[in-house]
Order: sequence, then C-alpha cells, then structure tokens
Amino acid sequence: MSAVPKTQKGVIFEKNGGPLIYKDIPVPTPKPNEILIHVKYSGVCHTDLHAWKGDWPLDTKLPLVGGHEGAGEVVGIGANVTGWELGDLAGIKWLNGSCLSCEFCQNTNEPNCAKADLSGYTHDGSFQQYATADAVQAARIPKGTDLAEVAPILCAGVTVYKALKTAGAKPGQWVAVSGAGGGLGSLAIQYAKAMGLRVVAIDGGEEKGEFTKSLGAEAYVDFFTSKDIVADVIKATDGGAHGAINVSVSEKAIAQSVDYVRATGTVVLVGLPAGAKVVAPVFDAVVKSISIKGSYVGNRADTAEAIDFFSRGLIKCPIKIVGLSELPGVYELMEQGKIIGRYVLDTSK
Amino acid sequence: MSAVPKTQKGVIFEKNGGPLIYKDIPVPTPKPNEILIHVKYSGVCHTDLHAWKGDWPLDTKLPLVGGHEGAGEVVGIGANVTGWELGDLAGIKWLNGSCLSCEFCQNTNEPNCAKADLSGYTHDGSFQQYATADAVQAARIPKGTDLAEVAPILCAGVTVYKALKTAGAKPGQWVAVSGAGGGLGSLAIQYAKAMGLRVVAIDGGEEKGEFTKSLGAEAYVDFFTSKDIVADVIKATDGGAHGAINVSVSEKAIAQSVDYVRATGTVVLVGLPAGAKVVAPVFDAVVKSISIKGSYVGNRADTAEAIDFFSRGLIKCPIKIVGLSELPGVYELMEQGKIIGRYVLDTSK
Amino acid sequence: MSAVPKTQKGVIFEKNGGPLIYKDIPVPTPKPNEILIHVKYSGVCHTDLHAWKGDWPLDTKLPLVGGHEGAGEVVGIGANVTGWELGDLAGIKWLNGSCLSCEFCQNTNEPNCAKADLSGYTHDGSFQQYATADAVQAARIPKGTDLAEVAPILCAGVTVYKALKTAGAKPGQWVAVSGAGGGLGSLAIQYAKAMGLRVVAIDGGEEKGEFTKSLGAEAYVDFFTSKDIVADVIKATDGGAHGAINVSVSEKAIAQSVDYVRATGTVVLVGLPAGAKVVAPVFDAVVKSISIKGSYVGNRADTAEAIDFFSRGLIKCPIKIVGLSELPGVYELMEQGKIIGRYVLDTSK
Amino acid sequence: MSAVPKTQKGVIFEKNGGPLIYKDIPVPTPKPNEILIHVKYSGVCHTDLHAWKGDWPLDTKLPLVGGHEGAGEVVGIGANVTGWELGDLAGIKWLNGSCLSCEFCQNTNEPNCAKADLSGYTHDGSFQQYATADAVQAARIPKGTDLAEVAPILCAGVTVYKALKTAGAKPGQWVAVSGAGGGLGSLAIQYAKAMGLRVVAIDGGEEKGEFTKSLGAEAYVDFFTSKDIVADVIKATDGGAHGAINVSVSEKAIAQSVDYVRATGTVVLVGLPAGAKVVAPVFDAVVKSISIKGSYVGNRADTAEAIDFFSRGLIKCPIKIVGLSELPGVYELMEQGKIIGRYVLDTSK
Repeated sequence: MSAVPKTQKGVIFEKNGGPLIYKDIPVPTPKPNEILIHVKYSGVCHTDLHAWKGDWPLDTKLPLVGGHEGAGEVVGIGANVTGWELGDLAGIKWLNGSCLSCEFCQNTNEPNCAKADLSGYTHDGSFQQYATADAVQAARIPKGTDLAEVAPILCAGVTVYKALKTAGAKPGQWVAVSGAGGGLGSLAIQYAKAMGLRVVAIDGGEEKGEFTKSLGAEAYVDFFTSKDIVADVIKATDGGAHGAINVSVSEKAIAQSVDYVRATGTVVLVGLPAGAKVVAPVFDAVVKSISIKGSYVGNRADTAEAIDFFSRGLIKCPIKIVGLSELPGVYELMEQGKIIGRYVLDTSK
Repeated sequence: MSAVPKTQKGVIFEKNGGPLIYKDIPVPTPKPNEILIHVKYSGVCHTDLHAWKGDWPLDTKLPLVGGHEGAGEVVGIGANVTGWELGDLAGIKWLNGSCLSCEFCQNTNEPNCAKADLSGYTHDGSFQQYATADAVQAARIPKGTDLAEVAPILCAGVTVYKALKTAGAKPGQWVAVSGAGGGLGSLAIQYAKAMGLRVVAIDGGEEKGEFTKSLGAEAYVDFFTSKDIVADVIKATDGGAHGAINVSVSEKAIAQSVDYVRATGTVVLVGLPAGAKVVAPVFDAVVKSISIKGSYVGNRADTAEAIDFFSRGLIKCPIKIVGLSELPGVYELMEQGKIIGRYVLDTSK
Repeated sequence: MSAVPKTQKGVIFEKNGGPLIYKDIPVPTPKPNEILIHVKYSGVCHTDLHAWKGDWPLDTKLPLVGGHEGAGEVVGIGANVTGWELGDLAGIKWLNGSCLSCEFCQNTNEPNCAKADLSGYTHDGSFQQYATADAVQAARIPKGTDLAEVAPILCAGVTVYKALKTAGAKPGQWVAVSGAGGGLGSLAIQYAKAMGLRVVAIDGGEEKGEFTKSLGAEAYVDFFTSKDIVADVIKATDGGAHGAINVSVSEKAIAQSVDYVRATGTVVLVGLPAGAKVVAPVFDAVVKSISIKGSYVGNRADTAEAIDFFSRGLIKCPIKIVGLSELPGVYELMEQGKIIGRYVLDTSK
Repeated sequence: MSAVPKTQKGVIFEKNGGPLIYKDIPVPTPKPNEILIHVKYSGVCHTDLHAWKGDWPLDTKLPLVGGHEGAGEVVGIGANVTGWELGDLAGIKWLNGSCLSCEFCQNTNEPNCAKADLSGYTHDGSFQQYATADAVQAARIPKGTDLAEVAPILCAGVTVYKALKTAGAKPGQWVAVSGAGGGLGSLAIQYAKAMGLRVVAIDGGEEKGEFTKSLGAEAYVDFFTSKDIVADVIKATDGGAHGAINVSVSEKAIAQSVDYVRATGTVVLVGLPAGAKVVAPVFDAVVKSISIKGSYVGNRADTAEAIDFFSRGLIKCPIKIVGLSELPGVYELMEQGKIIGRYVLDTSK
C-alpha cells in the first residue's frame, strides 16, 4: 500500500447538467467516523445520470463528484473508527452515512433516514481515486474479491436483492421480472434463483429470451410478440406471479404487473423514474388483496448478504471496463438507451 | 326453538336495480355441509346496495335475496356437518363458503378463493328469516350475545379489524382513519384502540371531531377547516401515520393517505368503490418505501377475533333497528348519504 | 380404472405390539366428505413402528391398519365432496382430517387440531390397497408422478420441509442437519438446498460424509472423528448455524444444537422420541436470544409445496420397494437400525 | 446547568463480592463517540447484584461502578457525536455501546453483539453522579419526564416490553406472567395491557392477586392455593396462554409454563438465573408445536418504544427512593428477597 497523495484524478461538475470535467482534485480527509477508500473501480448507474442532470425532486451538493458503486482498499481511518484496518477491501455505496439514532436507523431502515448522506449526490462519490465513507455504512468486501466485478453489486446488486426480499416471495414461488434482460434485471434473475424462487422474465426480443433463460429464468414473455402480456404471465406461472419486480420504469409495465400478480401477491416498485406514477383500480386491489411496495436501496445487512451471494459465485455481472475519464461517453450511451450490461470505470485511467 | 316453517318473509329482487319485493318465499334447505340459521337481525351494508344495483364487475345471482350481516340461531344442520348444535348462535357473513382446497383456502386467504360463495351476492343472504351457510364458514357467536348489536360486526367490524391487521401497525403506533366518523370509521377507531394503536381521525365538522374523540381518537383533522390535511396528519402523528385506513372511498383522500403515511408506512385500501383508482408517484413510493395494500373481508380467524373484541365489551356499534320490510327506504337514505351509524333490520317485521 | 372390489389385502393388528397379519379385509366406504384412494405404494415411517408398539402417550384405534405415506388413485368420491375427480392421483398423509373450525384449523395449524384424525393411528391407513381420506386434507399429486417415489414425500418430505420453514432461516443462511445421512436427513439437505439455504451435515463416518455432500451439503461434521462437534459446526458456519434441524432424536445431539446455533438462531425439534427431553441453560438461551421450536407435520399448504419441489425434480428419495406382505420384516430392520433410505411397500404384493 | 466537576460521589468495588465503597471518584471524560450524563437517579436491578457477586459466566471489569438504569441530563458531548444537545435528558442502559457493524448490530440485535459494552458490568455504570454512554445507544428521554420514575423503565421496563414482543402474542390474546406481583411482573402486566393483550397473573397470596388485578390482570392463579397451576391457567385462558413471560426464574415455574401455553404458543425466558435450566419433553414440544425463546434486553427501538408507553402515562412503576450511599443496604434486602417494587437511588445523597 503506497502513501496517500494530496491530489488525485476525479470527474467533477459545477452545476447540474454542466460539463463533466476530468481533472486533478484534492484527496479528501476522512472525518473521525470515516474511512478513506482508494477506489479502484466504480460502476455507473442510472442514478448517477439523474444526479448530474438534477431532474429528481432532491437537490445534489455542488460542485459534485458522482458515483456510488466504488470498490477499493482502505487507506485511511478516522480517529474514532473501530473495526476497520488499513488494507481491508471496502465499498462506497449509495447510503454513505446516516444518523444512526432515528426510528428508521434504529429499525434497519437507515436508507429512509431523513439525514441520509448519499454518495455521488450529497457526498462526493466514487468517480475519483480516493473517496470517504462513514465507517458504519461502508460495505465490507472479502479479501480476494475482483474489485471490478463486485462494483456493480454495491448498488445494482443490492437493490434488486432488496426488491426480491421486499416481494416476500418464498422459495418455490414465482417472481416476474419486468425488464429482465437489462443490467438490473439480469441480476434480479440470478438473485431470485439463488433464493430458491422461480422466475418469469419479461423483455423484448428473442435474444433477451435466450439470455434470461441462460441466467435461470424458467419462462419468458416477449413483449414484442405477446398478444396479452398479462395473460401470458398468468399462464406461465399457473395463476399469476407471487411477486413482480419492476426494474423497468415504464408506467404501462407497472400497471400490467398489478394485473398479473396473483391474489395476495406483491408488486415491487424499484426503479426511480423522475415523474412516473403507479395507478391501480381500488376494487381489484382490494378483492385480490394485493400489495404495492416501494423498495429503495438495501441496508447494511442487505448489502452484506448481496455481496455474500456474489462471493459464493452465484451472481455474475457482465461488465465493460473503461477509464474514469471516459465517463461522459458512458452517460451519452446511457441516455441513448444503448447500454447492455454494466459499465465499470477504472479510476487509474 | 319452534319448528322450521316452509315459507318465510324475505326481500327479493328479480333483476339488478329492479323492485325490492318484501314477500313470502320458501325457506331454503341446507345442503349436507350447511347449517340453516334463523336470522333474527341483519345489518345493511353498502355492498348490499352495490349488489342490488349490479354496478360491480362481478355478476350476482338472480333473483337474489341480499344481506350478509345476519345474526341468528341454528335451526337446521346438514348431514355432514360436525361442530354445530341446534340452538347455537351463528352469523351469516360475506364469505358464505369456499372450496377449502385451493392455495388461498389452504393459507387462510379463503376470501380470495376463486370459488368463493358470497352471501347476498351469489348465495341468498340475510334479508330473509331463514338462511343457509356453509358450516365451516358460518360465524360462531357466543351464547348471550345481543343479536341486533352483533350483526354489523359480522361484516363492518370484521372488515375494519382485518384492515387494521393488514396495516401491520404495532401497539403504540399511529393509524389514520379517513372517514372516521362513519359506520366503518367509528368501528375502526374502537378496534384500533383495543389493539393498542393510537388514532388520528379524519372527517368533516366539529360534531364528527367530538364523536371520534369520544370513541378513543387522540387527534382529529377536520377536512372542512384544515388548510393542509397531509401536513396536519403528519404533525399530529409526529412524522406521519404508520398506517392509513381508507374507509372513505374518495380518490383524493386515498391519494392524501399516500402522502401522510411516514416512511415504511402502509396505506390500506378497504372500501370497494365501483371505479376509483389509487394513484401514487413511483419516486416517492420507493424513497419512502411505503406499501399500499388492498384489504378484503376477514377470514374465519379474523371473524372470531373481531367478535371476541365485541363480546369483551370493547366495541360499541350505534345501530338503528327497523323492520326488514323497510329495506327499500334504508337504501334510499344510503344513496343520499344520510345514514349515520348502522341500520339493522328486524326480520320479524 | 377397474371396479372397486369388496375386499382387499391389508396388514392389520389387533393389539399394540401384537401380530401383524397380512390378510383379506373389507374395502372401506368413503363418508360423504371423503374420497377412496386405491393405494399403490406406501412408505414406512418410524411413526408406524410407534403406532404398532403403542409407546406414545396417545392411544391408537384397534384393530388398526397402519401407514400414512400412501400414494394412489381416486376411485371413490363421497356425496359432499367437491374438487376431486375419479382418476386423480392422491395421497394419504398423517393428518387424515381435522375439524376445520377450531382456532388451529382456522390459522393453518390443522395438525394441532384437538380433533385431528390420524392416518395409520386413529384412522385406518395406507397399509392396505384401498384407504379413505378426508377430501380437504388428502394430498394432491400431479398426473404423471411416480407413485412409489412420491410416497415418502407425503410424510418424511413434508415433515423436514416444514421443519426448515419453522427454522426461519433465510436464503444464504446456514442450517445444521443433525442425523443428515438418514432418511429424513437426506431429504432435509435437498429441501434446504432448493430453498437457497446452506447446509452443514452432521453424522458419523466417511461414507455419510460423501453421501451428504453429494446431496448438496457444503460442510460435514463427523461425530466419529470430531473432537468438538459444537466448535466444528461453529467454525464451518462462520459463527454458528442460523437453524438446526434435529432429525436425530438423541438428547445429546439436541443439547449440542442449542450450543452451536448462533445468537438469535433457532433449534428445531422434529423427531418424536418416546421419552426424550430438551434441556437448555436459561442464561445462555437468554443472552444468545435463541429459539427452540417444536415442528410437527406440515399443513395442507406445506404438503402441496413439498410435493411441488419433488415434482420439479429437486428432491430425490432413494427407495427400496418390497411387497406389502413384507411389512413385519421392514419393522424388524427398523428396530435394528439397519434401514438406509426409505422402504416403500407395493400394495399389490 | 452547572459546570462539570472533576470529582464526584460513586459506589465502587475492587473485587467481586468485595466492599461496596461510597466515595469521591474522578468524573469520567467522554470519548469522541460518547456523551457524559449527569445521573440524577438510578434504579437497582438484580443484575447489579450478580455483577457485584460475579456469579455469572461473564467477567466484569474491576474495579467497577455498577448500575444500568440511570436517568439524567447531558452535560458533555464527544467531538464526533451528532444528534444530542447539552441539557437533553438521557438514560444509561444495560447496553452501553456496541460495534454497530456486525450482523447482530446490522439487524437490530445489538444486545447480541460480541463486542457489547455493558453499563455497570464492563463499563462503569450509573451508581455515580456522572457516567458516560455511547451516543448511539444512550436512551432518549422526553423533556419534562420525572427522572426518578423513568429510571427503572430503562432496564426493567424495556426488558419486559421486549419479552412481550418476543412472545409474539397479538392483541386480544392471552399472556401468562409468572412472578406477576414482583417488580418486573408488575411492569409486564401494564405493558401487556397497553399492547391489547389479556393477562393471567401467577403469583402467591391474596395481596398479590389484588395488586395484579389492579394493574390490569384479568385472571389470577395463586400458587399458594392452586391445586394444579397448569390446569388453572389453561382454564382461565380458555385453552392455554398464547404466551408465557417467565420473570420468575424458578425452574419449576418455567417447566409449568411449557405445559400451560396452548398449541403453537410461546414460552419466553427472560430472567437470568445463574445456573437454571429449561427442560421440556420433545414429544410434547413437537406435537404442540410450541416455541421456547430467550429474550434478552431490548434494542434501541424497544427502548424508545418502552419509554414512549411510559411517557403516555400507561405504565406506573412504584419506586422507593433512597440515597446512593445506601446501595449496600438495598443489596442486602434484595438477597433476602424482601424488596417490593423498585428501589431508586438519588445520586445526590
């Protein structure tokens, strides 16, 4: 482990939607409760795009270094920190820190803490070589883990894993994954399978069908060719899915999920579209006794569990590695909807 | 116990919305799995009005005897029935019978059974002097119970009790009851209190405020005078209600409940408006991690528990008793929104 | 489907511990709520041995036809039965019928019903060619299922599946199976794996180790060679098992399981030794906040789920088929502890 | 708020069982993550006696200032603490601090943390005028609270509240409280009532009967006069208690509770007797499907909730206030079993 420098490379922007500048910036100093992580790799998430554009009803800090899927090594430890050692592998995740004392923190719902500090949003994130994280919330990554591959697990993986837990489906039951062929969807299929769940994948095109089945989906509904997606899901699952994971943020897809879950089933909302709504007929919701649940990011336990599934080799995340300096190009592809799998940035380039 | 006659008085209609005729009709014969109940009193529920008008997306049997809040005495027992004796007190409730074998029946969700047989809807109900009920589903009423007072418990009471259970709020937590001064609402307040919950009542007018507080509500939000119902509920509950019971079927009230539940809270839909929708912003639902749950009628256990709270004297239901022959007038008042408390029909008149 | 005869072959005994006689006995007539099943195959369970010997604190009917793992075909349907057709495949299981109305039946705990009617114990069971079962409780077996292989699932499979559910362990967590190499244990390993759980198997000898690992156990503790079973389980599970499934009925093994579950873990008691006790230090139980839970047989939903895992090919049960007339010899082997896998009786021989 | 002095009065002992010395000792300095509390009152708990005597299988720090039910005012705040202000009311409780990062801390089970720091055991406690507490774990006490009365809530109250939650009984169900007339028992009755539970109190003598009924118990079983405690509890609860709270640490009483809980019920172990064991027949535990659960002290959420019930006036704790210097005499009374209600020490005397 080499000495920590005073400056580093990072991508920073001064105002929402403004230029994304790759340049030398100071290395931050960890507070007494923080660790300093030498970020080696960072995934790029749709949320990073929202943070840059500023189109969510929640202000970002400015200027801002984005990123919240950073994997690296502990190179600095605040005076008041226990339980971390230099050289440990650690992850920067969406929830950088929380108050630890409110009712939400007390009950493992720390992502709902009103004082939540968010990496790449209200706290400079992982699109830099050295980033700080609250020692309590920083993700613990086992020695020997491939840091590039684990990066997307820290947000994408944890998020779909949490959504599956929120669905409340039990081993042997069916979950429908809407948008199953995308980055979140492909992770959702694998976590579902590892949890003993059966998956019906919903996406468009034959290629997505083959891909999702290769990951473990037992059935596939192709919205390019299906004449009745709701009926097809109900048929594939012998009565309707027990849970529906809406990683697709299409309002129409969400409305369909309300229809294809079986009675007493659960629709999980997990993406964060800027203005979308979920709409459901009250009569049907009552008579079918369904639940519609918002699932945000995972807490510390969800994170540890999601990483553990990954470490056991049960989750594969196809990544494409490019240099940190190439972030603007990645955002461009993202806006064009051209990304397949997950882009991971090598912070050394 | 006198002999069972061949004919009886009942209110019957031939087609949805057609004349409600009070006349002599045959006494039904219980099937081997049924009991015959001499209905003494029957509550009148909004659902009965929907059944008569036929404005729900579910066909009724025709001709039909409505009613599903009937309390009386067992006067006949099918050949295959065990566990009932002549003279036992029994109740006709919404779920008259179910298949007992499907996944929903197996898991205590028998109201969601696809073969559910519904009193006063697909099975002649309690607006007659003698009615049949599946022996497994018929409600057991303790000896000595006032049959007029218990009648509305069989649907209205059970329904709000189930909704409170669905809310998942724990003793010491807050539930908001929207439409708290009405028949369902006033029962919801009392059940909530008996369950150790704290209630903020929402309704219109000072009188409703005093009434709901007399039943145990700790706070009252008056939609006639409140400038911001959402803010007022959040203030009264120190951060938002943990659960919201929407016995009001107003779309606006439901949308407000999505806003005033606190993070991780639960909005319960419990009324059955013919065409209303619940609409919620996906972003907020996710970030607040809330649940929106449909709650239908209670199962057998819910029914037994709801009656038990009543029998222990914890639930008072203000009723107005009129003769069975006066049912058409009750429907008229109901359509005009002029009913306060619960009408109960005396089947002997 | 051939006509139902008047007499059939069965194994019957007149008094507990008395001769087991293979002879012609009358075919029973189903009651209005029952179906008649032409039993093709029946598993043999330790419980059958207890029923015959009469060493449990619960009287059997006498004379008695034992057996409660019968798989066959519906050949008769009571007048009041719905939902079954002639030719359906059906199973005789331990819980033949229950009252359907008590608090236990209402809450899916029908095995705890005080009026539970038990196959091969209080109701003639599956050690005959034709047996009756309450239509509500009889197990539904999908068309095309191998009836010999599914037979042991009806009790052994359901029981261990239920025990795993009772343990409350979540996908990714560890369960220890004590007695893992036996009939129940080998099923428990497979169900656990299908439910996303990780298994540490406990048994004696290298052969058992290889066998249990071939079924999916990730770790093996050999009580022939281990110097400290508790320490070894804690080490293998990185802190202690989250759940312990005691299919072994050894008091010592049970006491060890109290020690090797991690804090907040659950010890499940599932076998039914005639006089054994579970003993735990109160201090440790409190400070570790563990649970010790008795798990009886599964309910209808558990049964359907356990069969579904089997039907999906996830559970293999090594069986040895012999004729029904050879039952006394099977009991002898069982008493000598010489049975490996599960004996299944062919009722035609 | 006056300046914090350098020295203070406290009761300290050098070795387990050694002299309890009331003398001037230094005021501790809070670490960066701690607050300094001016303790005004401290309850005295049986655990303090065990800590002094050293008869538990867990070493205390030495020399030690005992006490873990301290209520006072924040007079010092560590550099890294957020969310506390000088003048806030705060409580010292059993769990002084935990690692915040282990699986138990992550899942709200921080009392089970292997690095748990215990007030009055491994961390100098509340038998002094100024004590330190981890800012995350210190109890928050609402302004205006009577500090003498709230003191016993911080351990005794939280512990029985947690035990009731662990019992899993739902509003309307029965809990038996064994040792109901004592300090813990009388709190358990009141919390149970506030949670909508029904209580059968078990203790000895008419006076205890009247006392427990005055607190809300609906039934009383007197072990001085009962000929069959198990039968009497089962009769009073119409089938057995749903939950049993064993604040009595008698082995016999615990064994009885295994017998008088109804099928699917839960026996909660909550006291910490030095060598007692719980013993249960496996056969009965399985067939009745009961749970035996250890319940330790509450977590942060339990603490906040238990204080909230107290603040709402639903819990009264009869206390006797004496000076801190009189602690040795209180221990003497405790050893003689002569304490009724709860002793609270005024640290100014």
